[in-house]
Amino acid sequence: MSNKKEKRILTGDRPTGKLHLGHYVGSLQNRVELQDEYNTFLIIADVQALTTNFDQPDKLSEDVRQVDRDYLAAGIDPEKTTIFVQSLVPEIAELTVFYSMIVTVNQLRHNPTIKSEAEQYGYKEMSYGFLGYPVSQAADITFCRANLVPVGEDQIPHIEQTRKIVRKFNNMYGEVFPEPEALISDFPRLMGLDGKNKMSKSLNNAIYLSDSRDEVAQKIMQAKTDPARIHKDDLGHPEVCTVYHYHKAFNLEESDEIAEKCRAGTIGCVACKKRLTEKLNAFLDPMRERRKKYLKNPELVDQILMEGTAKAREEAAETMKMVRKVMKIDYFNN
Amino acid sequence: MSNKKEKRILTGDRPTGKLHLGHYVGSLQNRVELQDEYNTFLIIADVQALTTNFDQPDKLSEDVRQVDRDYLAAGIDPEKTTIFVQSLVPEIAELTVFYSMIVTVNQLRHNPTIKSEAEQYGYKEMSYGFLGYPVSQAADITFCRANLVPVGEDQIPHIEQTRKIVRKFNNMYGEVFPEPEALISDFPRLMGLDGKNKMSKSLNNAIYLSDSRDEVAQKIMQAKTDPARIHKDDLGHPEVCTVYHYHKAFNLEESDEIAEKCRAGTIGCVACKKRLTEKLNAFLDPMRERRKKYLKNPELVDQILMEGTAKAREEAAETMKMVRKVMKIDYFNN
Repeated sequence: MSNKKEKRILTGDRPTGKLHLGHYVGSLQNRVELQDEYNTFLIIADVQALTTNFDQPDKLSEDVRQVDRDYLAAGIDPEKTTIFVQSLVPEIAELTVFYSMIVTVNQLRHNPTIKSEAEQYGYKEMSYGFLGYPVSQAADITFCRANLVPVGEDQIPHIEQTRKIVRKFNNMYGEVFPEPEALISDFPRLMGLDGKNKMSKSLNNAIYLSDSRDEVAQKIMQAKTDPARIHKDDLGHPEVCTVYHYHKAFNLEESDEIAEKCRAGTIGCVACKKRLTEKLNAFLDPMRERRKKYLKNPELVDQILMEGTAKAREEAAETMKMVRKVMKIDYFNN
Repeated sequence: MSNKKEKRILTGDRPTGKLHLGHYVGSLQNRVELQDEYNTFLIIADVQALTTNFDQPDKLSEDVRQVDRDYLAAGIDPEKTTIFVQSLVPEIAELTVFYSMIVTVNQLRHNPTIKSEAEQYGYKEMSYGFLGYPVSQAADITFCRANLVPVGEDQIPHIEQTRKIVRKFNNMYGEVFPEPEALISDFPRLMGLDGKNKMSKSLNNAIYLSDSRDEVAQKIMQAKTDPARIHKDDLGHPEVCTVYHYHKAFNLEESDEIAEKCRAGTIGCVACKKRLTEKLNAFLDPMRERRKKYLKNPELVDQILMEGTAKAREEAAETMKMVRKVMKIDYFNN
């Protein structure tokens, strides 16, 4: 365990609004566990948010704080995890510029994200920054010389691009960066309330970590259930029911029993939803408790961000010292 | 004149080795004059030098100092001109990243430099950084909120790209940058000693500002003259003679007389070359005198670079404060 503590994790999110249960299941829960074992850096990637929202920066300031509050409420401990703001670490921009010299346009076109964007809109209308997204991602990961990046299977090609850049840099100039490895953690995607798509803010089918007890109750009441089940004693098909899907995610211990009763028509949808609401609210209550503290003292949220950013910059300065040395541009030993 | 002093000029070079007479005639002389009238920022663009020489950074450290010595020898006055090193101003990298969001790949493909490079090698094998050269150039120009960029006619499209970026930024976020204007100064290109190509380090046809008196004498002796003129009293054709070309550039007052005598066959090539050598050495002597001081005290060269860079960073910090404010990412009033 002490060995692991020396290993660094880089993980984070674009600040695009409130985090929801899908984020919790998909990554937050994992991060809360990992922070006990690893030295974790958690990036709030506001510059990357500009890539796609460059024309509406007004929300960013609130979104950055929102994400920070969500992290803290979910159990990220600023004593264990360095939470920081990307745009306040200029060293990341410096690395982006250096890396851009050693990556060809062609390599970027092979990146899956870029590829699928290009298939939709073509390369030419793409912003230069978007095309360089894998380059800036490499800078995010390496600025703190991260060893591990927790990702799902589908994101492995992204990490591969970073590894390529790291290898090329290390070979060309000298060993500075560890080759970051994907820490694979494949969690099932959480379905949205519509029962059709994965939970997502833009589809308006999400339960937010910051939802009140009443909001959760209302949303669950409207959640899509088995369409074949009209009366309480119709025999149900839990495998197609969103509510059952949530029971499995947040009420695993009772989920088998509930599935059985649903199939037998001995539990109605309303009762089943109420049971889920209770469970979900019990699950969210400790987050609400923690959140209260930060809502009451917004300066605490800012302080945590500022301290985390300062800590990240110390690490970045250390990295840049090594980078300038091997690149032989440490002209004045700076 | 006091009004002009408020106007800022951005100009500079990639540090790729010793500067030669072609640099002097083409830009240095102009800069020495402009520094009396304008607030001049002189960038040693070492990061841009990495774009094409990313795999041989060893020379950069010496090249940066070489260029600085050449500037100082040529009469750039560090009291009037802020000489600074690009890689030591991280704000330029930050602006590069921000601008990359508001420029499309397509716009970059229309840039003449990129276009001609692409015609030679294709887009795909181009480095991402090279494709973004116009973006980083915009960052170089605007980091100090420059008003004017001295360029030749052929470089106007480059400035136009920067103006586009500035307009888009100002419109999207708020007025931060003046639209930089090209300060057109078309000096004739200086021919190289081979009489075929313009003077250039890579063609090995250059007289360097740092050449000794003897080196200048030897090079002029080997300079290409009128090939039809074999004997001293053959009638010459000064318009095809490199030596006459240099007389016009550095010995204008005697050049008509020399042309006449050449055509009449009353001055021989050796005498004509000796006359030029005297003139050139008289022209270079004050530079040699100034250079001596810096060769004897290399710490002076470093000090000037460090002070200039510190001054450039002050200006850059001021710019970034305004940028973060209008982009609304000045989260903690930083």
